[in-house]
Amino acid sequence: MARIAIIGLGYIGGSIGMGLRAAKLRDTEIVGFDDWRAARRAADKQDAVDQVAGSPRDAVDGAGLVILATPPAATSELLEEIAPALGRGAAVTDTAASKVKIEGWASNHLPNGVSFIGGHPMAGDASAFGIDQSSPDLFRGKRWFLSPSPSASDSAVKSVLGMVRELGAAPHFLSAEEHDYVVAGVSHLPLVVSTALFTMLRRSDGWPDFGRAAGETFRAMTAYNSGDPSTTTEIAVTNKEQVQHWIDRFVVELNRVRNLLDEEEEQVFMEYSAAQINHAKFLGGDDMDPDAGAQPDIPDATSQMAALLISPRLYDRVRKMTKRSEEREKEREARGRRWGRG
Amino acid sequence: MARIAIIGLGYIGGSIGMGLRAAKLRDTEIVGFDDWRAARRAADKQDAVDQVAGSPRDAVDGAGLVILATPPAATSELLEEIAPALGRGAAVTDTAASKVKIEGWASNHLPNGVSFIGGHPMAGDASAFGIDQSSPDLFRGKRWFLSPSPSASDSAVKSVLGMVRELGAAPHFLSAEEHDYVVAGVSHLPLVVSTALFTMLRRSDGWPDFGRAAGETFRAMTAYNSGDPSTTTEIAVTNKEQVQHWIDRFVVELNRVRNLLDEEEEQVFMEYSAAQINHAKFLGGDDMDPDAGAQPDIPDATSQMAALLISPRLYDRVRKMTKRSEEREKEREARGRRWGRG
Repeated sequence: MARIAIIGLGYIGGSIGMGLRAAKLRDTEIVGFDDWRAARRAADKQDAVDQVAGSPRDAVDGAGLVILATPPAATSELLEEIAPALGRGAAVTDTAASKVKIEGWASNHLPNGVSFIGGHPMAGDASAFGIDQSSPDLFRGKRWFLSPSPSASDSAVKSVLGMVRELGAAPHFLSAEEHDYVVAGVSHLPLVVSTALFTMLRRSDGWPDFGRAAGETFRAMTAYNSGDPSTTTEIAVTNKEQVQHWIDRFVVELNRVRNLLDEEEEQVFMEYSAAQINHAKFLGGDDMDPDAGAQPDIPDATSQMAALLISPRLYDRVRKMTKRSEEREKEREARGRRWGRG
Repeated sequence: MARIAIIGLGYIGGSIGMGLRAAKLRDTEIVGFDDWRAARRAADKQDAVDQVAGSPRDAVDGAGLVILATPPAATSELLEEIAPALGRGAAVTDTAASKVKIEGWASNHLPNGVSFIGGHPMAGDASAFGIDQSSPDLFRGKRWFLSPSPSASDSAVKSVLGMVRELGAAPHFLSAEEHDYVVAGVSHLPLVVSTALFTMLRRSDGWPDFGRAAGETFRAMTAYNSGDPSTTTEIAVTNKEQVQHWIDRFVVELNRVRNLLDEEEEQVFMEYSAAQINHAKFLGGDDMDPDAGAQPDIPDATSQMAALLISPRLYDRVRKMTKRSEEREKEREARGRRWGRG
């Protein structure tokens, strides 16, 4: 009988347990543990695992695959605690939102012959809490980052990959460093920005007026702030350097926009329409070809697809502006030729 | 027969027409105009107004109340055009997202005896376009800012106020200057931030990877970018100074957060939990008393309400930290007393 152990039976760990049970793996038992008694009871009651163990060591004893779904800050101690009970060939993975620190802890604590493959499912509602909100389908169709440590064995990687596939998620391999850089940009920075936007206005003298004036934009832009602050804190603390890097870049971008507002209205408009069209393409999944990053930011307003996504008046305006830009470009070329540079 | 004129029969103007028609005002005809033929036809077909006029002047001829629901950039010319046709005692209002510039144009172009009362309904979906998406209930329960110009007559203010109430909206008076400051903070800055976040990542070398890694947070935080860029541009251009002011303050806030990440985890956690609890109070409408801005930012974690909004583990952590802070405070006080300062 093969054994899969899940340590941490909250929203994420519970969903993994339910998803793996629903997959009805042959000759496999799923054993869980949580250091919170109420969580152990809830997992048992909801049949999220086949068996609830009495300690982390009991849970991982004889397991071929161990999944840590605990808060990231608890991971170092936990790895140290389970290390003696792990068998040769075992694969250990986790679900935390940053990977470099945890890979370092794994390398410090895990014995030779045990492989660590960092994992990060991009699924779930930031404000969800506890196994009551867990679902076996939470990861279906969602991306799941995998960062195998350099010493991980092929069979251990395959074992974690198998779990991701059983849960219906789309695996995506990145090194721990790449992962932390990318995720800091698309996930941790937006979290920081959301909280900073709310905190700045909440602390300013005009707050009650600001609060009363706030419409849907402000509510939605500050909503990400409502996730569990323990998680937000741990993200910020375990991926600090990358988050700071992106804050710095974002400050540069904001200053660029500040200066742009001093330019002609046409330039501001071209910037905002480029952003809108590129965003519509992004939401439509049409912007994900490998060369997209290298494309110029001028909206491709003549394409039918873009026309369908934007209003007719806007389409007309963008078309005219694009035409004007092309004419200026031609004129510039013509002059260049006259000056003998063409 | 009293006359109300609506110039601009798009999403907002159409909704005003439909709402006023639904109110079945006695002895009142609602006349509309749009310089786009398709919009005139659609308004007629959808009975958004009682009558479609052939020109802005024809529409406002004899009207006691004139509502401009056109893009802000068109307002100056439009005011100049309709001025000769406006009767003494007429009230003119608008629906643009900034007020100082438009109040200035009104003061330049409108004759004596005609009152300008700036208006700004905080309603509607930024990506909605055209009268097809209009609804008579669009403004129901929503805030509607009113900024009467200094020379506006009481009866003209009452006339605009009456319209706002017929539409079911909640009027809120602010001077044009106050309006532009507040709205730049809660609405224009979030728009700029949303676009800047998308643009920065879209333009960076790692884009295709960033796009693939993006989860719900990034999608929602950058969604406000998908409004009509003409509107976004005009907001930025007509309220530039205030938007730049808030960009500067936001850069200061981001740098504060950047430095906070270098502090102890406990401090980061206290900051994020204060933000979360205050945000929950804000969403619950419980944070809007006039003194709220002056309150300290330490979460009131002992209150039942806060406990209901946050998870039990978090509640416990905040409670412990608050207790620790109180003990430190007591210790400080006790020391103060020993030193003769208490």
